[in-house]
Amino acid sequence: MNKYHMNKMDREITDQEEIKEILRTGKYTTIAMCKNNEPYVVTLNYGYDEANNSLCFHSAPKGLKIDIMEDNPTVCATVIVDKGYIQNKCKHPFSSVVLWGKMEIMETLDDKKLAMDVLITHLEDNPENSKNRLRNDKMYDFINLLRLNITSMRGKSGS
Amino acid sequence: MNKYHMNKMDREITDQEEIKEILRTGKYTTIAMCKNNEPYVVTLNYGYDEANNSLCFHSAPKGLKIDIMEDNPTVCATVIVDKGYIQNKCKHPFSSVVLWGKMEIMETLDDKKLAMDVLITHLEDNPENSKNRLRNDKMYDFINLLRLNITSMRGKSGS
Repeated sequence: MNKYHMNKMDREITDQEEIKEILRTGKYTTIAMCKNNEPYVVTLNYGYDEANNSLCFHSAPKGLKIDIMEDNPTVCATVIVDKGYIQNKCKHPFSSVVLWGKMEIMETLDDKKLAMDVLITHLEDNPENSKNRLRNDKMYDFINLLRLNITSMRGKSGS
Repeated sequence: MNKYHMNKMDREITDQEEIKEILRTGKYTTIAMCKNNEPYVVTLNYGYDEANNSLCFHSAPKGLKIDIMEDNPTVCATVIVDKGYIQNKCKHPFSSVVLWGKMEIMETLDDKKLAMDVLITHLEDNPENSKNRLRNDKMYDFINLLRLNITSMRGKSGS
């Protein structure tokens, strides 16, 4: 999908640190999925697991997105930094990351705990408060977590 | 795609006026597309053409999204009202619309003018300023516009 050049009004972000910084600071991502060549879109809070090049999510145990990802785990997701529309200039500055990867359901206690740790650490300014509520491992029997393993990503900024 | 129930933490918005109000106030939408059952996601500013139940976009004349939509015009798009993450509550209130429809490239001068009018009227607080710059119809030879004809939509709000 990377053979296309960007629109001349947009600048490709080639600095990997700059791309990662967008993922570090974002709170949610919008994910495109396909089933039988029909698109579906879902928006989720995420935690960025930089060490494992992936995003972690909390999820309901059942539903349309789980059905689709079990059928076709390949997804394309985006994180947008909206810098606000500028009136009278027809401009809307932004930065964004578009990433491709595969979704995976966390099955083991260890995988679930790591994904939850990533999620809370990412979202919360004082993650220990939330982590303290999860001290009993039995709670993970009722918590469903997903991981998006990133295969490629692309950043851009534009106006 | 509508056979699924929503997560119990989310509330389905059944009031069509409330759904439309999200589309009226949003500035951009993230669109999921599929080619050969592979997803792609693109984010665009839009204008909401309520009378024609569609969203209008400005676009580059060529590129990946044009290639994909010519191959498979069916899309699924979302507009998010982000109400901000609430620290220490693991909550992120939002409202959103997810909509399904088909993309179409505007070919005639009349269709282009209508789509551009919708776009500018939606985005600009003082649309006449921008419209005055488009008085010469020849300019439309170099302007590419798209329309997403909505077939169904669904609203939800959650935390």
